[in-house]
Amino acid sequence: MKKVKGGVCVPKGFVSAAASCGIKEKGAERLDLALIYSQEPTVGAAVFTKNKVKAAPVQLSIKALRKKAPRAIIANSGNANACTGDVGMEHAKAMVETTANAMGLHKDEVQVCSTGIIGLPMPIERILPGIESAASQLKRSDEQVAKAIMTSDTRPKSVAIEYTDSANKTIRIGAIAKGAGMINPNMATMLCFVTTDYRASDQYLAEATEIAVAQSFNCISVDGDMSTNDTVIVMANGEAGNRKDSGKTQFQEALNEVMLDLAKKMVSDGERVTKLVEVKVTGAASDRDAEKVARAVGNSKLVKCSWNGNDPNWGRVIHAIGYSGAKLKEEKIDIGFSGLPACIDGLTAKTSLSKLAAAVAKKTFSVDIDLKLGDGKFTLYTADLSPEYVDFNREEYALTRRKVE
Amino acid sequence: MKKVKGGVCVPKGFVSAAASCGIKEKGAERLDLALIYSQEPTVGAAVFTKNKVKAAPVQLSIKALRKKAPRAIIANSGNANACTGDVGMEHAKAMVETTANAMGLHKDEVQVCSTGIIGLPMPIERILPGIESAASQLKRSDEQVAKAIMTSDTRPKSVAIEYTDSANKTIRIGAIAKGAGMINPNMATMLCFVTTDYRASDQYLAEATEIAVAQSFNCISVDGDMSTNDTVIVMANGEAGNRKDSGKTQFQEALNEVMLDLAKKMVSDGERVTKLVEVKVTGAASDRDAEKVARAVGNSKLVKCSWNGNDPNWGRVIHAIGYSGAKLKEEKIDIGFSGLPACIDGLTAKTSLSKLAAAVAKKTFSVDIDLKLGDGKFTLYTADLSPEYVDFNREEYALTRRKVE
Repeated sequence: MKKVKGGVCVPKGFVSAAASCGIKEKGAERLDLALIYSQEPTVGAAVFTKNKVKAAPVQLSIKALRKKAPRAIIANSGNANACTGDVGMEHAKAMVETTANAMGLHKDEVQVCSTGIIGLPMPIERILPGIESAASQLKRSDEQVAKAIMTSDTRPKSVAIEYTDSANKTIRIGAIAKGAGMINPNMATMLCFVTTDYRASDQYLAEATEIAVAQSFNCISVDGDMSTNDTVIVMANGEAGNRKDSGKTQFQEALNEVMLDLAKKMVSDGERVTKLVEVKVTGAASDRDAEKVARAVGNSKLVKCSWNGNDPNWGRVIHAIGYSGAKLKEEKIDIGFSGLPACIDGLTAKTSLSKLAAAVAKKTFSVDIDLKLGDGKFTLYTADLSPEYVDFNREEYALTRRKVE
Repeated sequence: MKKVKGGVCVPKGFVSAAASCGIKEKGAERLDLALIYSQEPTVGAAVFTKNKVKAAPVQLSIKALRKKAPRAIIANSGNANACTGDVGMEHAKAMVETTANAMGLHKDEVQVCSTGIIGLPMPIERILPGIESAASQLKRSDEQVAKAIMTSDTRPKSVAIEYTDSANKTIRIGAIAKGAGMINPNMATMLCFVTTDYRASDQYLAEATEIAVAQSFNCISVDGDMSTNDTVIVMANGEAGNRKDSGKTQFQEALNEVMLDLAKKMVSDGERVTKLVEVKVTGAASDRDAEKVARAVGNSKLVKCSWNGNDPNWGRVIHAIGYSGAKLKEEKIDIGFSGLPACIDGLTAKTSLSKLAAAVAKKTFSVDIDLKLGDGKFTLYTADLSPEYVDFNREEYALTRRKVE
């Protein structure tokens, strides 16, 4: 199993193209539309946001996936097409129909995704010609689509893995993603598009996707917000020629690795984030309890501020553990930073503060929490909270935007 | 019913004194110890933090209150005496015993409270003489105790109300409080001490206190964190001479007003807060659902950043409503700012952005959310999130502190 350069066009039979439709600013040259296409029939799986306010494209894609496997993904950045009512639904349908017509597909073979500002109508008159233009320029290169789905991301995110299975077939998985793992200034959403030439059944691909998402995107948190548009789509076209659903362990491992790689990249590229922090909880009464503890610690504003300030502040960590709702005994709690004990049995440990501070000053470190009650465990990948994050998100971006629009 | 100047010494028969023990910095002149005393027997009620990690003084006060009514409250700022193990419990007991001895009370008549840094031993050798000094200087003035319990508060908080009941008795309620409604840099806790000369039964005072806390301190949020030391204590000594438990409606109203006044002061004085925001949710399927929505909106970092930036960003509000877990229909949601509609039936309203922005630019405004599903309602008092908040909380305060200690 090895990482290779590229993203969604690494697996056999996938092509892509991007376009500039001026969605963010009329006339801007910035890429804001991405089309990914499988030249062969596929099976597909997807996971969508659990937010009850779902953008029109999300509603449409959920329905389409129930009827047909996706052959194409059409995605735009700059406008989330959320809270846009009937007009928004018409626009999402128009994007699907234009894509289907251009590619000769049934409309239910098209997944549509949007990410960006909430509550504003799409400049659909500029988007539809963009779709046609992209459809005419498809090629085996994915650099541009990785850029086209970015919103407040500072860099494009892609990954690809290649491995040889026991029957000597070469399997490839590629993916692109966007999102700071958070909702931006009205710039909603994390999106992740995965392609593979592995041959899978519908049912197995759905199972494998759920497992991979659970151990990656469901284990990251930047600001604890959850978007109206979050979407992960996996398309498998079977071009690798493997026996259907063969070598599941290897495939799962590779799919997990692809999604975890992108999940970590999202956290590291979180808005104005300076640190990637792994909150490792063990010894909880249950996995569910461990997750509660990890999320309470990883989402606490005060804990995140202390990380930004290189402060190995276990007092803030234990107070968040205390209100997490998990079963715990204060006098059993151990807390450490990158393996150095800071608190043992609920009391301050002997480790020198300078050593602990050095651990927390690193760009990547772990917070190790052992409740010493049971076997429950959970790891959350999260980040610090910086003054620059607030500064960025307090800017009257949306306001300005709406004036421009 | 009228507000009068002063705090805990406004009701008849209460005296107080403060001292400087150098808890924060050895030799500092800053007041950090407060003693409040009722010259007559009382009945008492209290509400303590629900955080499972409870400071030693909290544990001790809970036990004492079960046995006897409180005649004295001894409280220090600068050190929370939390996560300090057996030594911390000995220190809390020593504070209680020194107070009891100095005042001629049974130890269970003393409530002890600490607020400040977590995980460090108390400089108990400096605190005990401070208690004796305070006990010898009790007077009918409460300005100093309001100052002595401050941590990161920028101003002391007190309130007093006086009213005449139907039997022509004058009833007084006074209170002091500290806390930015949040956990500070290891400076935990909100504390509120209430005194009254109203004559009450144990049971009624407990009921009235629960109701007052529920509509005040349980309806505020600055950063969503919950401290290891939060405490509200009410002492009623009956000196007003009213018939026991008479005029409940009036008393409840006054007690509610006292606590709500202090709760709002806490939010307004939240760390680096620039705005007091009332999140009013109506039309929810249940009160519980309304509370879920109010808390999701009021605790969302992105929503709070937008308020700081004077951005009437209803898109961020609706996305937080969407993940609140409350029952909702997107196409029914109305969102407004101080009465101006921003979103109607889930879609952008016609109100001009400049008007909405002007509403959000005010130091106090409301976010009005109507789910149009039922009669459930809840109001949360909360604040914006500023870059200065993060800056303040990322400072290596604790670290420096611990070096000093």
